[in-house]
Amino acid sequence: MASLELHPDRFFSPEPTQRSVARSLFEGVATLPLICPHGHVPPKLLAQDEPFPEPTSLIIAPDHYVLRMLHARGVSLQELGVTSSVDAPTEVDARRIWQTFADNYHLFLGTPTRAWLDFVFAEVFGLRTQLGGTTAQTVYDEISGCLQRDDFTPRALYERFNIAVLTTTDAACDDLAHHRSLQADTAWNGRMLPCFRPDAVFQVAARSWCGDIEKLGKACGTEIVDYSGFVRALEERREYFKSVGATSTDHGVRSPKTERASDGEMERLFSRALAGTASADDQARFEAHMLMEMARMSCEDGLVMQIHPGAFRNHNDNLWRRFGPDKGADIPLATEYTRNLHALLNSYGSDPRFRLVVFTLDESTYARELAPLAGHYPAMRLGPAWWFHDSVEGMRRFRERTTETAGIYNTAGFNDDTRAFLSIPARHDLARRVDANYLAGLVVRHQVDIDDAHVMMRALTFDLANETYKLGIRT
Amino acid sequence: MASLELHPDRFFSPEPTQRSVARSLFEGVATLPLICPHGHVPPKLLAQDEPFPEPTSLIIAPDHYVLRMLHARGVSLQELGVTSSVDAPTEVDARRIWQTFADNYHLFLGTPTRAWLDFVFAEVFGLRTQLGGTTAQTVYDEISGCLQRDDFTPRALYERFNIAVLTTTDAACDDLAHHRSLQADTAWNGRMLPCFRPDAVFQVAARSWCGDIEKLGKACGTEIVDYSGFVRALEERREYFKSVGATSTDHGVRSPKTERASDGEMERLFSRALAGTASADDQARFEAHMLMEMARMSCEDGLVMQIHPGAFRNHNDNLWRRFGPDKGADIPLATEYTRNLHALLNSYGSDPRFRLVVFTLDESTYARELAPLAGHYPAMRLGPAWWFHDSVEGMRRFRERTTETAGIYNTAGFNDDTRAFLSIPARHDLARRVDANYLAGLVVRHQVDIDDAHVMMRALTFDLANETYKLGIRT
Amino acid sequence: MASLELHPDRFFSPEPTQRSVARSLFEGVATLPLICPHGHVPPKLLAQDEPFPEPTSLIIAPDHYVLRMLHARGVSLQELGVTSSVDAPTEVDARRIWQTFADNYHLFLGTPTRAWLDFVFAEVFGLRTQLGGTTAQTVYDEISGCLQRDDFTPRALYERFNIAVLTTTDAACDDLAHHRSLQADTAWNGRMLPCFRPDAVFQVAARSWCGDIEKLGKACGTEIVDYSGFVRALEERREYFKSVGATSTDHGVRSPKTERASDGEMERLFSRALAGTASADDQARFEAHMLMEMARMSCEDGLVMQIHPGAFRNHNDNLWRRFGPDKGADIPLATEYTRNLHALLNSYGSDPRFRLVVFTLDESTYARELAPLAGHYPAMRLGPAWWFHDSVEGMRRFRERTTETAGIYNTAGFNDDTRAFLSIPARHDLARRVDANYLAGLVVRHQVDIDDAHVMMRALTFDLANETYKLGIRT
Repeated sequence: MASLELHPDRFFSPEPTQRSVARSLFEGVATLPLICPHGHVPPKLLAQDEPFPEPTSLIIAPDHYVLRMLHARGVSLQELGVTSSVDAPTEVDARRIWQTFADNYHLFLGTPTRAWLDFVFAEVFGLRTQLGGTTAQTVYDEISGCLQRDDFTPRALYERFNIAVLTTTDAACDDLAHHRSLQADTAWNGRMLPCFRPDAVFQVAARSWCGDIEKLGKACGTEIVDYSGFVRALEERREYFKSVGATSTDHGVRSPKTERASDGEMERLFSRALAGTASADDQARFEAHMLMEMARMSCEDGLVMQIHPGAFRNHNDNLWRRFGPDKGADIPLATEYTRNLHALLNSYGSDPRFRLVVFTLDESTYARELAPLAGHYPAMRLGPAWWFHDSVEGMRRFRERTTETAGIYNTAGFNDDTRAFLSIPARHDLARRVDANYLAGLVVRHQVDIDDAHVMMRALTFDLANETYKLGIRT
Repeated sequence: MASLELHPDRFFSPEPTQRSVARSLFEGVATLPLICPHGHVPPKLLAQDEPFPEPTSLIIAPDHYVLRMLHARGVSLQELGVTSSVDAPTEVDARRIWQTFADNYHLFLGTPTRAWLDFVFAEVFGLRTQLGGTTAQTVYDEISGCLQRDDFTPRALYERFNIAVLTTTDAACDDLAHHRSLQADTAWNGRMLPCFRPDAVFQVAARSWCGDIEKLGKACGTEIVDYSGFVRALEERREYFKSVGATSTDHGVRSPKTERASDGEMERLFSRALAGTASADDQARFEAHMLMEMARMSCEDGLVMQIHPGAFRNHNDNLWRRFGPDKGADIPLATEYTRNLHALLNSYGSDPRFRLVVFTLDESTYARELAPLAGHYPAMRLGPAWWFHDSVEGMRRFRERTTETAGIYNTAGFNDDTRAFLSIPARHDLARRVDANYLAGLVVRHQVDIDDAHVMMRALTFDLANETYKLGIRT
Repeated sequence: MASLELHPDRFFSPEPTQRSVARSLFEGVATLPLICPHGHVPPKLLAQDEPFPEPTSLIIAPDHYVLRMLHARGVSLQELGVTSSVDAPTEVDARRIWQTFADNYHLFLGTPTRAWLDFVFAEVFGLRTQLGGTTAQTVYDEISGCLQRDDFTPRALYERFNIAVLTTTDAACDDLAHHRSLQADTAWNGRMLPCFRPDAVFQVAARSWCGDIEKLGKACGTEIVDYSGFVRALEERREYFKSVGATSTDHGVRSPKTERASDGEMERLFSRALAGTASADDQARFEAHMLMEMARMSCEDGLVMQIHPGAFRNHNDNLWRRFGPDKGADIPLATEYTRNLHALLNSYGSDPRFRLVVFTLDESTYARELAPLAGHYPAMRLGPAWWFHDSVEGMRRFRERTTETAGIYNTAGFNDDTRAFLSIPARHDLARRVDANYLAGLVVRHQVDIDDAHVMMRALTFDLANETYKLGIRT
């Protein structure tokens, strides 16, 4: 039975001098708390603080990285317990699902999913047995045992993980009830902030759009009947989010195209949308305009604006119809920034009140477009390696391709960007190690001296996220 | 006179711990036979088993990597003995051509061509003298001497190279006579399989198309007069290829665009093509549709489908007119997969009967499109680093950019993809070493333990190619 | 107070065997002079040989890398002393500007700007104090002191830098007075060559175009009233540049599209341009045609043709209106070469009289398009890593992605491409070290033997630039 052990020098170069410097840089930030300025943890988790359920529904079901890989090798989502709207019942035996997962755990060798899960098993649950086909049920039992203990509730783990702030991602119409209840809860010493993500109400060609507009109206206690009312509603909701602690907004679009249209054109487009006749082109036009509006509002209310573009969502139509979104079938697209962000950056990119964090799934834009843009416009910061690129090699490429043009001080620090609460410390551990190893490379090649490297390490770990997202955390 | 020697640790990291692990992983697969599931060796070679001719026509003339590089530095193809259809006679003195090649051998420093050729000289021919201007004729003599020996015939080398299976690439109308004669030959213990590549009959705008259709009809004992007859002929030929051992098809297209058209539209387009009036747009439409049809047929007959897209063939018009194709003037194009494969993967990508291997000449798609697609769709596997990227750095980039999202188990193992029979062991040696070094990097950074790395090494060397191409080889 | 010291092994791998080989390769070329075949040093500098002004106007004001980075972190160009055409007066106190720069010097950590500036401070000025907020004025004083000495005049530094040739970049209408005066100056032993860069007269849609055409006519002692006269003027100016020593031309275009148009079409387009009604499409068409014409003329007059494509110039409109071009607001664009250069390479790429050096800001084209093109067409050489990519990681990527397909002998050697005269030796030092380290990597992985590596090192440092640009320098 293979033993599970996390090597203290994991992810560092094997070259002894670089490894030694990397270790020293990593240790220098060991006590700094985790800043989580962007992610997808359900607010309910900490608000209700109920014990986690058994391992399968905690670890497998919500993790699209896990679903994706097993699906790719022929394991159906039903076998993994994912509920389908139209198919025969899925597997409901949690232990059997866990066994299937464990039998295929070798598929994750060399992937960040494996690194994160091994950390969760070893560090969060204290296991010493490597997961695999023969150890599946033992590991299941051990995790189950932990989950029943008081020191494994969400809030207990939040404390243990040393999280300074945890930002969630919330729809424009969300009432933020969980956030408010946490703020009112004197027993809770943590900090959870909402983030305003109005994607749904920008997607004028989606069938669900009219319903989303209705919900948005309700959240404002009004009915939205035209474009100007829509804009007022968004401004109002942003104010509400701010009042509950939000410091940022987020925007998921297929293309980061930005272009201001006239109010008249937008009114006509909005009417078409209300009539259910908006086209895909209308939606692209609307989104390009609304990104301009979001930037304008950010200048006025100070919320930091994030753009996460470039995913072809739900690429597998059939799987989407049966199981819904976020099941590992989103595929990146080549993405253009230089022309697409031209309008937005020309209008707002030099406004001292504005801050924009831009992400990408297209690494070819790091050195070609994003580092040059972030290395010129004062408002812009480059978001960290995202999603598929949140990995050892992905983060290495991010630093190697952006630092020489943008420096580190035009980047935004780390985001764990996860739904999987348990994996938060694993992701920060990995990111800190990769950054420490990158900086160590600069030190041993005599490009940066060790004292500067320690300052840079702290910036990458803490200061940049804190400052970029206006979190005001002190240590 | 410089001596030629292959270092036992070539291509491995100089860092001692990584090098030591790489060596151990490489040695662990030393006795595994070579699987060659895709390549361009002429079937005649092994069927007739005639001794190889002298060195120049064996090593220089058929190698477009060699022609390309010498041409780029001003050596004309005539000087290299390539026959032109319109020009004055080419150089015919094999020794003079060899001397020109040797005088310019330094041009290949740092390229895989040099690594492969040095392996051929040192390992296949046992030379100990480095090729160069002053040693050209000595080397020529030594190779000539070898080529006259019984242990240097194609079949003797096939044995010595420890090849388990060698797949060729064959036109849709090919009678596969050499494959059949080998199968009937009781003196032959090897295994050579055809692969169905109907590119020519999909290129409806090419001047040669009508002739190709005529040949296809003849191969089926019929005349192809319409689209439905064309589809029937393809189905029949696939069956025939299968009966001669084929396990795969292959498709070279400029773009991997896939889109189903109606039968009616295809009939009309086919009529235009027969009338010689099909346009470039017609051809693109036809190819996009025929890729869908090839996938449909693969579901039905089980042949593994390969797509090799993205080359601008015969970029140098004048050279193409004078010397024909495959002379080193094909240039890659930026290639899109996420949208282009959407139709095909939605229709067939989750069909358990289907297997698709996708290649690219555009490395920017590895992490952005191909690894995410292969890491989701059960039918899809990612083909190895291809052509210009079949090299130390190219294969390293392939692993570093694809493993973290797709793992290794959604990749297809190694293809040598060569016309140059002698270079087959050189290419497998290089690929194994690069993979061993990559895995060793994971081990010394404590991402994968050594036992898992040995299993992964065997998968990359043997199991994945064997399984992907349904070869059923046992060791 | 941190001390400033350049480590003798800077930029080399920390791995001891590779480092030792890299050092040996670097030392092997230590005495070779600097070849500067493309750059932007003002010719006046050496012609007039006046002492440099104080540090701020010498080091900060002309360096768009410095301006860009400080601007990105909120320092306005006014605070940096850049003169605006429309705003309130800028900061004029050189010491205060220097202090601002020094206070923000940490922003450059990990960038080539920092590496170059530290070299300038340590090697050119002999400083031993690291620049920073507390040392700003001391450093300013030390540099000021140097600048008043006889051994710090432009010509004295030219000698000390061991420059063999320095090529400038000059408009089509330039009278090259400074070049001629240098050639007539018997006290000057250096070599400064002009380069013909007619971008302005190709930009038919620019408001300044008519004025530029007028100047071009004046330079030819004629009035340009039609396209054929324009072509004659260009031919004449090229002859004039050649007579003053030019060996090359240079062309900055947004896209490297090449396409020949008919003379009739060009005459009509030129008329529209003279009438001030040429469109952006007209300009693109004109540039594509004029690149063909430049290649034709290069075949005839032997000037080496360079193309520097792919920058979206003056991306920040407002900054451009206030401060003009070259202030750090140019942003790269994705760039296509395979299709765009097809016409030019088919017409001239195999002409033995032609030489073309192609650059890129889009690294995704290195392995995909540029190395395959340079590795086939005899006329084409691949220019070095350019601008944003003229850095440790950028040059490493250039070598790793181009050598395996194009070898080193289809590349053009190093360009420092700088306006900052003082940084010339810093840039060559960095490039030589990165190349030495790259070649050392090949040696320690046993891909190239050490003797070949020394020959390659000399080629990269000296021979390739000398040969590519037809400079005829002997050592």
